[in-house]
Formats: sequence, C-alpha cells, structure tokens
Amino acid sequence: MPSKALSLANARRYLPILDWGSRYDRETLTSDLVAAVIVTIMLIPQSLAYALLAGLPAEMGLYASILPLVAYAIFGTSRALAVGPVAVVSLMTAAAVGAIAAQGTIGYATAAITLAFLSGLFLLALGLFRLGFLANFLSHPVIAGFITASGLIIATSQLKHILGVSAEGHSLFTLLGSLFSHLTQTNVITLIIGVSAVAFLFWVRKGLKPLLLRAGLKPRMADLLAKAGPVAAVAVSTFVTWALSLHERGVAIVGEVPQGLPPFTLPSFDPTLWSQLVLSAVLISIIGFVESVSVAKTLAAKKRQRIDPDQELVGLGASNIAASVSGGYPVTGGFARSVVNFDAGAETPAAGAFTAVGILLAALLLTPLLYFLPKAVLAATIIVAVLSLVDFSILRHAWSYSRVDFAAVAATILLTLAFGVEIGVSAGVGLSVALFLYKTSRPHVAEVGLVPGTQHFRNIDRHSVETHPHLLTIRIDESLYFANAAFLQDYILDRVICDQPIKHVVLMCSAVNEIDLSALETLEEVNRRLDEMGIKLHLSEVKGPVMDRLKRSHFLDELTGEVFLAQYDAHEKLIGPREVA
Amino acid sequence: MPSKALSLANARRYLPILDWGSRYDRETLTSDLVAAVIVTIMLIPQSLAYALLAGLPAEMGLYASILPLVAYAIFGTSRALAVGPVAVVSLMTAAAVGAIAAQGTIGYATAAITLAFLSGLFLLALGLFRLGFLANFLSHPVIAGFITASGLIIATSQLKHILGVSAEGHSLFTLLGSLFSHLTQTNVITLIIGVSAVAFLFWVRKGLKPLLLRAGLKPRMADLLAKAGPVAAVAVSTFVTWALSLHERGVAIVGEVPQGLPPFTLPSFDPTLWSQLVLSAVLISIIGFVESVSVAKTLAAKKRQRIDPDQELVGLGASNIAASVSGGYPVTGGFARSVVNFDAGAETPAAGAFTAVGILLAALLLTPLLYFLPKAVLAATIIVAVLSLVDFSILRHAWSYSRVDFAAVAATILLTLAFGVEIGVSAGVGLSVALFLYKTSRPHVAEVGLVPGTQHFRNIDRHSVETHPHLLTIRIDESLYFANAAFLQDYILDRVICDQPIKHVVLMCSAVNEIDLSALETLEEVNRRLDEMGIKLHLSEVKGPVMDRLKRSHFLDELTGEVFLAQYDAHEKLIGPREVA
Repeated sequence: MPSKALSLANARRYLPILDWGSRYDRETLTSDLVAAVIVTIMLIPQSLAYALLAGLPAEMGLYASILPLVAYAIFGTSRALAVGPVAVVSLMTAAAVGAIAAQGTIGYATAAITLAFLSGLFLLALGLFRLGFLANFLSHPVIAGFITASGLIIATSQLKHILGVSAEGHSLFTLLGSLFSHLTQTNVITLIIGVSAVAFLFWVRKGLKPLLLRAGLKPRMADLLAKAGPVAAVAVSTFVTWALSLHERGVAIVGEVPQGLPPFTLPSFDPTLWSQLVLSAVLISIIGFVESVSVAKTLAAKKRQRIDPDQELVGLGASNIAASVSGGYPVTGGFARSVVNFDAGAETPAAGAFTAVGILLAALLLTPLLYFLPKAVLAATIIVAVLSLVDFSILRHAWSYSRVDFAAVAATILLTLAFGVEIGVSAGVGLSVALFLYKTSRPHVAEVGLVPGTQHFRNIDRHSVETHPHLLTIRIDESLYFANAAFLQDYILDRVICDQPIKHVVLMCSAVNEIDLSALETLEEVNRRLDEMGIKLHLSEVKGPVMDRLKRSHFLDELTGEVFLAQYDAHEKLIGPREVA
Repeated sequence: MPSKALSLANARRYLPILDWGSRYDRETLTSDLVAAVIVTIMLIPQSLAYALLAGLPAEMGLYASILPLVAYAIFGTSRALAVGPVAVVSLMTAAAVGAIAAQGTIGYATAAITLAFLSGLFLLALGLFRLGFLANFLSHPVIAGFITASGLIIATSQLKHILGVSAEGHSLFTLLGSLFSHLTQTNVITLIIGVSAVAFLFWVRKGLKPLLLRAGLKPRMADLLAKAGPVAAVAVSTFVTWALSLHERGVAIVGEVPQGLPPFTLPSFDPTLWSQLVLSAVLISIIGFVESVSVAKTLAAKKRQRIDPDQELVGLGASNIAASVSGGYPVTGGFARSVVNFDAGAETPAAGAFTAVGILLAALLLTPLLYFLPKAVLAATIIVAVLSLVDFSILRHAWSYSRVDFAAVAATILLTLAFGVEIGVSAGVGLSVALFLYKTSRPHVAEVGLVPGTQHFRNIDRHSVETHPHLLTIRIDESLYFANAAFLQDYILDRVICDQPIKHVVLMCSAVNEIDLSALETLEEVNRRLDEMGIKLHLSEVKGPVMDRLKRSHFLDELTGEVFLAQYDAHEKLIGPREVA
C-alpha cells in the first residue's frame, strides 16, 4: 500500500490535474466557466494583436491560445495562470525569427513553430532536471529594466501600423530611424483610426470604470466591462471600415483569416535551423518562465496556495510543445489575463481549458468577421497594453539603494533599447553576475578589536576598541574562494610588512561560509610567509562545515598557530590576562 | 618640492628601472652578467624549440628572446623573471594561428606577430586600468589541470618530430589519431636520434647531477652544468648529422636560419584578422600573466621583495609589443628559466637585458651552425621540459578536499585534452564561476537555538539548544543576492506553513555581508506574506554596511518586527524572561 500511495503522490505531483480534478464539483465548474467567458473575450483581440507583433499571421495567435491552454491545465500548478501569446515573448519571437527568415514566408512561420518546440523542450528539460533555480540569475533590476525597455520597443514597433507605413528594426533606434524615413507616406485615415483607438482604449482604462460606478454598477462588474474595451474597439472599427470601404483608401486590414480547427503542424528538424534558434529559445524560455512564475506566485499567495516552480516549467514546456504541433508560437503565462482570470473567479486550471474552447469557437466561427479589422486597432490595443509595463521608477529606486543595482538596471535598459531584446537581457544577466563576482573578489575586510567590558569584537575604524601591538585580528566578511584568495594574501602581507611588532595574526572567520582549494593553498602560502617573518597565524570562529573540510587537508598540521572556537579565547590566550587587566 | 618627489615616485612606479638603476654597482653587474651567460646558454635551444612548437621558423624564437627581454628590464618589477617564448603560450599560439593560416606561409608568421601585438595591448590595458585582479578568476585547480593537460598535448605534438612523420591536431585525440595514421612512415634514423636525445636529457636531469657531485663539483655548479644538457645534445647531434649527412637519409633538420639582427616588423592592422585573434590574445595574455606572476611572486618572496601585479602587466605588455615589432611572437615569464636566473644569482632585471645581448650574439654568429640540427633533438628538449609540468596529483588532492574543486580540475583536464587549450581553459574558468554561483545560490541555512547558559546560538541539528515554539530563528550563511533570494523566500515560507504556533521569525544576519535590491524586494515580500499569516519578521546581528543600506530603503518602515543588535536580545525580548527562567 505505501508504494501505491507513493506512486499516486508522484503522479499528482507531475500531473496536478489528478489532484484538483478529483475534487471538482458543480460550484467550481460555474466559477471556472464565468472566468473562461471573460478571459476569452479579452484574449481574442490580444491573440490577434500579439501574432501581428510577432510578425505572424493573425490566426497563429488564436491557435497559440487553444491547445497550449489545455496542456497547461493538465500539467500546470497555478490555479489562475492564463497561458498564451504575450507581448514580450512575441517581440522576442519577432527578433529571433526575423534574423533568419523574411516576414510572410513559410520559413518565417516554420521558424516560429520550431522556436516554440525548442523552447518547450528546454523548459521541460529544466523542469524534469529541477533546474528552475537557474531563472534566479535573472535579478529583479534586470527584469524590471528589460520589461520597461521591451515595452518601449513594442510600443514604437506598433507606430508603423498607426501611421500606416512600413518600418523595420528590432531596437528602438533602428525602429525610430525607419519610421522617420517613411513618415511622409503616412496614411491619414489609418492615423485617425489608430489615434482614436488609442485614445478610446486609454479612456476605457482610466475613465470608463468611474463612469460605470457612478451609473450604479458593482465595482467588479465595472472592472470587467472596462476590460472588454478592446473588443468594442475591434467591433466598431471593423464595422466602420466595412461600411465605408476604408480598405480601398489604404487602411491596412487583417484580411482573410482561415476558418477552422488549428492545423496539425510539425516543427522543423533541420539542425542548421535548430542551431540558429537555440539561444533565442533559451532566452525566451527563461524570460517567459520568470514572468509567468512571478504572476503565478503572486496569485497563489493571495489564496494561501503554493506553486511548484519546477512543475511550472513542465507545464509551460508542455504548453509550448502543444503550440508547436498546433500552428502556434512561443507562449507563456500572461500578467494581465491571469489577473483578470483570478478576479473573474477562476478556481482551477479547468478555467484555462474552457477558455481554450472559447477561442476554438472563435477560430471556427468568428474569423470571417475579422476580415475588415484595421491593423491600426490591433496596434492600438498593443500600445495601450504595453505602456503599462513601462516604469522608469526602478531607476530611481535602484539608485537610492545601491549603485551596483542601478548599473545593472541602466545597462539593461540602454542595451535593450540600443541593440534589441536578446543582447539587452543577456548583457543584463552577464553584468549582474560580473558585478556580484567583482564584489566578492574584493571582500570587505576589517581589522577588529575588543569592545571594552564585553566579549565582542568590532571594526577598529568604527568603534572604540582595545587592541594590542603584538596581535593583529582581521575579520573577513566573505567566503574565501579563488577570486578573492590573492586579495586576502596581499592584504595580510602588506599589513604585516609595515608593522614590525606584530607576532600573531588571527583570521576571524565568522562570515567565512566556505574555503575552496585555491583559498586553502593561499592560506598555506600566507602561513609559510608569516612563519618566515616569525609571525604565527591563527584562526577563530571557524564554522562547522568549513572546519570539517579543513580537517581533510594538511593545513591544520602546518598551521603555526591555533584554531580558536571564539575570538575572545584567542584574545585571552595570545595577549594574556595580565595585559588585559 | 613635494610635487617633484611625487612625480619621481610615480615615474619609479611605472618605470621600475629608475629605482634599481640608480643603485646599480659593479658587484650587482658581476652577478647579473654571470646569470645572463647561464640563462643564454639555456635559452638558445629552448627558443628554437618553442618556435618549432608554435609552428614558426626557428629564428622567430630567437627574436622573441631579444627585444622583449629589454622591454621587461625597463618596465617589469621582478628582479629574476626571465621573459621569452614558453611552452604553453607557444602551444596556444599554434592553436590560435593554425586556425586561420597554414603553417609555413607568410600569413601564419604575420598572424603570430599580430597575436603578440594584441596580447601586448590587452596586457597594457589591464595594467594601466589596474585590472590585474581579473586573473584571479583563474582558480588554482583550473590552472593546475590546464598546465597538466597542456604538457601532455605538447609532448604528444612533438612525437611527430621524434618519429619523423607529419601529424596535425590541437587536441590529444586528433594528434594521436594523426600520429597513428602516419606511423608506418616512421624514419628509423630520426627515431634513433630522437629517442637517444630524450633518454640523454632525462639522464642529464636525474642522473648527471649526482655523478658530478660524486666527482667533487660543488652542488650549485653541478646543478648549472646539468642545465646545459640540452646545449650538449644540440651540439653533438648537429655534428653527427653533418658528419654522416643524415639529412640525406630523411632526418628533418632545422635548415637555414637567417643570420643577423632581428628584423623590424609591424603587426597586421586588418580588422578581420584582429577579430579572429582577439579572443585567443585575451586567453594567451591571461594564462601567460598568471604563469608569470606566480613565478615572480615566489621568487620575490624568497628575498622579501614585493612585485606589483599591475606593473607586471605593463612589463609583459611592453614585452609582447616589443616582440611584435622585432619578428617575435607572444612571450611571457618562464618558470624554469626564471628559477635558473634566480639560482645563478641575477640581482636586477639588467640580467635579462644582458641575456638579450647573448641571444643577439647567437642570432648574429651562431645560426649557420644550426643548419644541421635535427628537429627531433629540439622536440626531445621540449618533451623533457614539459613532462615535468604534467602532475595528476592535483586530481587526488582536489578530490580529498572538495568535490567542487575536483569537478573543475577534471573538467579542465578532459576538455583541454579533448578539445584543445582554448576551449579547455575557457570551460575551466566558466565551470569554476558557475559552480561558485551555484553554491551561493543555495546557501547553507540553519535553524538555531540558544546554547543553555550562554548567549550563543547554534544549529539545532548539530547542538543541544533551547528553542521556543513561538520563535523561529534562521541563520543564513551567505550574502543575500538575486541568485539566492527566491531560495530564502521558499525556505522561510515552507518552514512556517507547516508549523502553526510560530509567531516570530528572526533572520540572524551575522554572515550576511550584503543584501542587494532583489534580495531586499524578496525580504519585503516575505515580510508581507508573514504579516498576512500573523507572523512578525525580525532581523538580528545585521552588519554595519548592510544596515546603512537598509536605512536608505523603506524596508525598515514596513518591517513588522524589530532589528536587534544581538540575537540574544531578540531571544530575550520575544520569548520573555519568564519562560527562559
């Protein structure tokens, strides 16, 4: 019996649907269905718009919002996460795929599908090997800077649809340059439609809800109605374009969107294509995972639920593989739609599956109605959605707290704007890690003395403490490893060379969490050099795990001095009670 | 006057020759001259041999041992370092240049000269910006593994000269494969010469010195005579080859070596070539610098002198630029020759300049005598020299101390043998850094309690301590930064969710040397979540610099609990003295 219980627990861990599915009842069903209807209405224009942002046919946005949601419902752990195409990942898809194929070609769509497949494989691998912690190397400042810069690039990239011109580029500057050079070709009717849509959507966001509240609606209803703004914009603009035949006057429209079930597709297995896409797939996976898991964690916390990041990787991996076999492109959990899903009362991942059915119905029935939808309106929904991501306050926040964090944010924003998303985020991660390594390679080292009347030792520069000319006590505020071993050696030797009376050097190791082999060899060297000068080296307050390891080396045999449990013991023994008195 | 004194001190720092040159006297001159003669005798066959190893004409080895020594004498800080072509850097030059030009072409020599120039520029830049600390990221285990694997590759690469066949490859396996496929073409006379030379040189190393000692020579003289073994091998084998016309029977000889001053050369300024060489130049510079500075430090320590690593970068940079304008190739400080220089009594860098004069005389007068020198004998000197670098004991040593260090050594050795020097050392550095980051991303976290009768707190798993059901105290043995912030959050929340009575969580920060912005935001989140559960969060033993920074954020205002100076204060206050009693 225990083994059966165990295997069931295991199955529930890897297939969370077994867990919540077994307790599913009519009440939960109702909640999930209501949430699904609301999210579906929100997702239809978004899916089309993000496909446009990714440079793909509009229907691929719908396809990416069907099977992936079902896959997440089976494998995901978050009760409220809504998976599908999102702005940043769509932009990254455009950057990755645009580098190897021209928009509108079969090769472009195939590359996007292959990118989803590779991203899915990578996410699954991370999840199965429980490597989700890798995402932690994307620091908060880097993410914040990256999202802000991406939002600006996305908004700028959509200006061409608002102006009705063509423009290319994956960085802010190439986009702006391209836009300016085409500015004279602006289509005035498109511009009017686009600007009206942007203005309307901003008003829906800021002004509609208070109006509805004053009209007597309940807050939650008012909130949800306001979320349906994009659908209204789509419906009205499509009708106007059709009625006035604006497409004959240069207004770009979505055009024919194939009607029917998502097609069965296969990613390419061309090794050249894989090698071109693999780095982008890694970046997209990690960015998507970080965005998704932070939304999922926030929502789970509100209901005292927990999500399992490694199982989330499996869920997102399955979603992306589902996208790749059903004509979609890379997907992840979206912030705005997940919050709507949560607020609308979604109780289980089944809400996602019901949303998938809703989008499927749209793909089967509504696509002919989208023929006259102006691209400028889709662009407007994107612009209004992403501008809420742009938040430069992180710069001020980071500056006031730490220059190092500020450097990471500023570099990420500037490099993303200047060179595009892939270089921007890679440089941000690289810089964060480099700055961390730099800090640990020059650790804080303090000379300490005894606080009179206590057993405590403090920095001689900050406190009034007792010292003794024969005794030098150095507290190292960092683990000792290869990058700072030489620094410590130089510090100690420089210090003792210019101070003749020193007879004992004590290294106070209360903040030393590790001593690696390079540092051990350096300590052996320091011990030898001090010995040649007639100075004894001692250690104090060495932690258990560090001491266990030192005992496995010859260092403790060679050490000229002693290892003291407490710094106070070292002080007492080496100076002698006479002189303290 | 102070400004003049200051500028003189500055000039002496950047031009160490001004320092030692002003105190130069006849006695020092004699010591330096004796050392120079001995090193010259040792350097002549070595320079030729290492040029061969680098795939370059023999004379380039001599040229690389003239002007670079003069440049180092002016800018270097070590009194005994002997600069010139060395085995590992020659191998790396062959790998770098071999990837872009065929051996024996003008392009190959030009690329080697350009590599020296780029390496010189990079070293100078590191020195002027005082970035020498970057070399610390090459950990001891990685260097040890790299040198051992390089020694094996170099020895294997010279077997073709011993066998008299042609073979190609930059990794152990490609070399062995190539050798085996040509084995049937072995030239027996070459093989006899090569094996005899190897046997003779090994005997000189191990057997000659005891013999000379028994013959009544003084130890130092016996030692120095033994170092002249390669010169004897060169002289005898050249004579035999000439006398028996062995070159007409398939024995490969050095052939014509141009007689005269080093030519004035210029590196190529082709940007394509620069971009192909720049990474190799960086690797060669760092490896060369690390090797050189460790020799220089060891020798300086024996005489209680100090060397300045950043000025060493300037010295080595100047040497490499000197090499590039005088027909040389990348150089650095060599271990064996520097020890010989030191033992022979070199007092100042002038010994290096005198050695340069010796090699210059050789280039002017001796080169015609080298015509009949068999390449197999040069190969033998290389093999015997580099096999002393091969030392697998680091594997055992690292294994017994730390699995992480062992992984770094083993990976460096395997990857260097399998894929060559550049990939090997890059992967070694990358892996060391990755393993360090991994360790810090999963820090040691201990739940602690009060050791009865003291004010000390220890791990509840290792010690018998007092705890209280309302109070959870967690000691974090690592700085808090982006890579481990999420880990800490999960640890705390997982811990409190399954333990209902907890009312207070204290984070004991005695080993927290830093809290970055990501970690700060995570702590704010933990504070909020605990607050929702009715649990207060406290900090204790926060270090001065960390506290200074926290005061610049809003965290301390939001913190539901307090910040205690000592953990004991937290314990007293939160549990109350009644319950302790």
